[in-house]
Amino acid sequence: MNFCSACGKPVAQKIPPGDNLPRFVCGSCDAIHYHNPKIVAGCIPEWENQILLCRRAIEPKSGLWTFPAGFMEIGESTEQAAMRETVEEAKAEVVLTRLHSVFSLPQIGQVYMVFVGKMQSKRFGAGAESLEVRLFHPSEIPWEEIAFPVVKEALRRYIDDMAKGGLSLHVASLPDRLNKTGTTGSILHNRSDG
Amino acid sequence: MNFCSACGKPVAQKIPPGDNLPRFVCGSCDAIHYHNPKIVAGCIPEWENQILLCRRAIEPKSGLWTFPAGFMEIGESTEQAAMRETVEEAKAEVVLTRLHSVFSLPQIGQVYMVFVGKMQSKRFGAGAESLEVRLFHPSEIPWEEIAFPVVKEALRRYIDDMAKGGLSLHVASLPDRLNKTGTTGSILHNRSDG
Repeated sequence: MNFCSACGKPVAQKIPPGDNLPRFVCGSCDAIHYHNPKIVAGCIPEWENQILLCRRAIEPKSGLWTFPAGFMEIGESTEQAAMRETVEEAKAEVVLTRLHSVFSLPQIGQVYMVFVGKMQSKRFGAGAESLEVRLFHPSEIPWEEIAFPVVKEALRRYIDDMAKGGLSLHVASLPDRLNKTGTTGSILHNRSDG
Repeated sequence: MNFCSACGKPVAQKIPPGDNLPRFVCGSCDAIHYHNPKIVAGCIPEWENQILLCRRAIEPKSGLWTFPAGFMEIGESTEQAAMRETVEEAKAEVVLTRLHSVFSLPQIGQVYMVFVGKMQSKRFGAGAESLEVRLFHPSEIPWEEIAFPVVKEALRRYIDDMAKGGLSLHVASLPDRLNKTGTTGSILHNRSDG
C-alpha cells in the first residue's frame, strides 16, 4: 500500500494511538488502513464413498488437484461461500453436513475453512477454473499432485477420520510453505459423534 | 474506496474479466482491489463454573458487556487471536479447549469464531478497552446489557449447551442488526463429545 484509498495521498506505516501494531496511516486525512486475514472457504464433496476433486486450470499450481475452495466474499456466509465455490469450480450441488477443518496460515494471512458436503446427484463438471473434475475413492487420491499443503493436510485428515469411522473437527495452524515438517500443532481436536 | 492504494489514481467499480462481481479497479495501473470479510476471534474464558465478561470502554456499545473478542491480525492463527484478545481486554491467560461457534454476519462482512478457554488462574483485570471485567455464574449474565446480538447468540448457545451437559459446535449465519427475528438457520450443528 502506497496511497490512501480514501483521499489518494501517500500513506506511511506507523502505530496509531491506542494501537500496538504498525498500520498504513494517511499523512493527509489520517485514515487508518487495516489489513486482515482472508477466509478461504472450501468443500470436500462426497458421493458414494468417493470425493470430488478439481484439477486447477489457473495459476498458482495449474494442473494440480484440489477440492473446491476460494476466497469468501462480503455478503455471504462461510457455508454459502463453500457451496458457491463447489458450483463454480466443480458444477456440483452439495448440502453441507459439517465443518471439518479450520486451518490458519499465519504467514500468508489466510484461514481455510473446509466443510464436508453431500452431493445431491452425480452431476458435476469442470468450471472455468478447472481443467478436469472427477470422483476419487480414498485409495485413488493423487497425493503427489495436490495443489497446496493446506489442501493435502485437510484431505489427509479427512481420509484418516473416515478410516477411523467418523469425522472430527480439526483446528490447527499450518507452517509456511518452506517448512516441510508438517503442522505446528493442533490446539484443539474435537471428536464429534456425527 | 476512491483511489488506488498502489498508484494513487482514481478507481472505478467494474467486473474484471473472468470475474462475476464488481471490484474496485484502477483506471491507471489496472490493479484490482478485493475486499473480503474479516474474522473476529473471541473467547469465552471459564473459571469454576463461571465465565469472564468485559464491560466495553470503547465505542460502539461502550458500557455494555461482551466476552473478549476482536479482529484477527495477519501473522497469527485464529487461536492466537482469541488468546491475545483475552489478554488485552481481560488480562487473563487461557488455554483454549475448543471452538464453539462460527457465526457469519454477511451484511457486515464479518465472521465470528468463538473459542472456549480454561483460565489458568483466577487472575484477570480490565485492559485498556474495558471498563470492568468480572466472573459471572450462568444465572448472573446481564442478558439485557450484552453489546452485540452475535455475542448474545454465542453466549446463549454456550449456556444452553452447558445446561444440557456438553458443548457443541455451532455454525450459522446471523441476520443483520435490523432483523430481530433471530438466526437465519444453522446449516450445521455438530454434537461433540469433548
